[in-house]
Amino acid sequence: MRFTRDELHGSLADPVLGTIGFLNEVMARYPEAISFAPGAPHLTHLGDFDLARHVESYLAYAAERRGLSPDRARHLLYEYGPSRGLINDLVARALDLDQGLGISPDAVVVTVGAQEAMLLTLRALCRPGRDLVAVVQPCFVGITGAARLLDIDLVAVDETADGIDLDGLRTACRAARADGRRVRALYVAPDFANPSGTVLDLATRRRLLDFAAREDLLLLEDNAYGFTAAPGSGLPGLKALDEDARVVLLGTFAKVCLPGARVGFAVADQTVCTADGSRRLLADELAALKNMVTVNTSPISQAVIGGMLLENGGSLAALGRDRATLYQRNLGLLLAALDRHLPPGAGRPAGVSWNRPAGGFFVRMRLPIPADTALLDECASRYGVLWTPMDQFYLDGSGADELRLSCSYLDPEQIGEGVARLARFLREVCP
Amino acid sequence: MRFTRDELHGSLADPVLGTIGFLNEVMARYPEAISFAPGAPHLTHLGDFDLARHVESYLAYAAERRGLSPDRARHLLYEYGPSRGLINDLVARALDLDQGLGISPDAVVVTVGAQEAMLLTLRALCRPGRDLVAVVQPCFVGITGAARLLDIDLVAVDETADGIDLDGLRTACRAARADGRRVRALYVAPDFANPSGTVLDLATRRRLLDFAAREDLLLLEDNAYGFTAAPGSGLPGLKALDEDARVVLLGTFAKVCLPGARVGFAVADQTVCTADGSRRLLADELAALKNMVTVNTSPISQAVIGGMLLENGGSLAALGRDRATLYQRNLGLLLAALDRHLPPGAGRPAGVSWNRPAGGFFVRMRLPIPADTALLDECASRYGVLWTPMDQFYLDGSGADELRLSCSYLDPEQIGEGVARLARFLREVCP
Repeated sequence: MRFTRDELHGSLADPVLGTIGFLNEVMARYPEAISFAPGAPHLTHLGDFDLARHVESYLAYAAERRGLSPDRARHLLYEYGPSRGLINDLVARALDLDQGLGISPDAVVVTVGAQEAMLLTLRALCRPGRDLVAVVQPCFVGITGAARLLDIDLVAVDETADGIDLDGLRTACRAARADGRRVRALYVAPDFANPSGTVLDLATRRRLLDFAAREDLLLLEDNAYGFTAAPGSGLPGLKALDEDARVVLLGTFAKVCLPGARVGFAVADQTVCTADGSRRLLADELAALKNMVTVNTSPISQAVIGGMLLENGGSLAALGRDRATLYQRNLGLLLAALDRHLPPGAGRPAGVSWNRPAGGFFVRMRLPIPADTALLDECASRYGVLWTPMDQFYLDGSGADELRLSCSYLDPEQIGEGVARLARFLREVCP
Repeated sequence: MRFTRDELHGSLADPVLGTIGFLNEVMARYPEAISFAPGAPHLTHLGDFDLARHVESYLAYAAERRGLSPDRARHLLYEYGPSRGLINDLVARALDLDQGLGISPDAVVVTVGAQEAMLLTLRALCRPGRDLVAVVQPCFVGITGAARLLDIDLVAVDETADGIDLDGLRTACRAARADGRRVRALYVAPDFANPSGTVLDLATRRRLLDFAAREDLLLLEDNAYGFTAAPGSGLPGLKALDEDARVVLLGTFAKVCLPGARVGFAVADQTVCTADGSRRLLADELAALKNMVTVNTSPISQAVIGGMLLENGGSLAALGRDRATLYQRNLGLLLAALDRHLPPGAGRPAGVSWNRPAGGFFVRMRLPIPADTALLDECASRYGVLWTPMDQFYLDGSGADELRLSCSYLDPEQIGEGVARLARFLREVCP
């Protein structure tokens, strides 16, 4: 049987979904290229990863805590298990140890990566044709893609020098209200956002929380890269500053532990009043929806993450500090290599510039020519270097002259060599 | 922050989502009860489950097949991995060995359980406000719940003595067309459907495929319970009879391997013609959507399932045959206990009846009184027996006098004792 794509759901024609396929295809076509494209974590930290040991650590804990025999504890791995998760207590404890959140395990839903947490949260909060979601542009494609899949309309809010264009967001909120609609939430990554690398300072974080209260918005906080801050420079997350349950925290274990476990979480401590007068948490609603998406997160995967937390005193930050050293080093090497190979003056084509994030996985570069898939293909085939075109991170088709360089999973010599090649390529193709 | 549920997505108020929460809550409240409620597989088969060994079996295969060093093969567990899956070749081979499907691994998408396969398939096929999905009623709640979550309208088609009311479905297709809409697909479980236990005979399967071609429908085949057929009695699945890629097969490893891995799959070999004239498979579209739901299925979980397949000659059916013996035994014990404890005549309240499926996990019972949550609560608190009210399996509020008894994960003495208690309860409460 054959049909045309316009017989399928519209999200499949969205460039956001198409670009991921294109990038995977380019990477498969040039397996030997030095790739600044994917934001994957470095594997060096997994030298001591021992699947069976991590699982056993968790099972020993679960047996003791729940008063189970070793055999019965092992059954936890085999069965479906609760939709909301098995390791919610460990997630809540890590968030308390690391950020002082003091939230109940009942407010946690363990998800298949932060991506499922985004999908569930968007679905719970948005009624079709009624609720809009605002995103800070440029924006992680996972949230825009999930919104497209759910037919949720998005509003783009621009980044500014000091953070977010709140005037623009206020205007969008009012326009929505005038239209009988509502901007329900703002998705924001306050720490080294993907792809911009921007950090919101403390005053901006507080202003954002005030703004959310005034305009009756929720904030969907994605803090995947907060752990990469230089020692002593980390700021409290929005959820840590949140006194009125305005923030839903979307979390991941992919960057600090490992992507292959596919474990993330949502913290959703908002109160929902049901028609029969009972009260529940937004987390309960997310868990109900999760029954219809993945039923539950693999208990094997949860045990792996639970074991890693337990072996590190229950703290995710303790694991993250160790990892952060490498990412700080790689980012420093990437910025130094750019300075060295594209020095100001004759060595740097006019119109080539980049930002200097203090953490995270990414540097954002601007070119005097379109940084599109045709340019990427040329750079890959002739210079063996890959990067990510930025237009997919914009809702409005801007960003066409920007590219994203990720340094997270490369080794020092690859970073140096990759930037040297990229510099030669840019000197050749830029006018 | 607090809000009312009518500020949330409408699916959260749907009884289908609510009932799952209620059942979990009842089971948690009566942990000592004999539960005929959940359709979970028996754990006895997992006596020899060795997580590390299964993973190593898969890694040895992957290393050899892809020419990877052992270290590099191990990295497959750590990384994100392709959205469409890692073990697609093993899934395709198992389907070929077991059912002669002869499909390409490219037509397979590995998913987080069959549930995610349902969600992705519904999403790809249905445009908002335009496409409808038909389901055979009573119907597995996973498909109705996923449709609700995606705002997809459903059409109920009744079961008949010999299968499916195709006249009713034809009428529904015509009514949709007259309304400028389209019934895009029919969800059907041809073998021991959950919850009805019905099996479509071979002639009905062929008639259904002809019907689908004539009315231009897709068939979404869920074959979770096919492996429980008595030896020699299995019928070819719809996908095995499908000559025109009319069938999307939604598969699970939960019942034969283990639920805890959360691995399922879709086989979607339909051709999609894109606007630029290129062709791809529906499986490619499902994989693109999966990026926005769970990114990819945990490679650790996939390695577990891959290892189990490899250790059984690549066949899922070989594993399933072993398991089927227990389910055949349990079903026989359940039916015999019902006959014994509710004998015709004075021992059986008027209006109490049940069906006699030849396989699967479930028996469906009809009562002369509402089999609702109040009755369940009474049965649990006073007789220590749990079951599943059936109204959630109907779209139209019927089925209120039916309950489902699952025998899959109980032991013989529990089945006997549970039915004895249920019989006493029914004699007490039925008029």
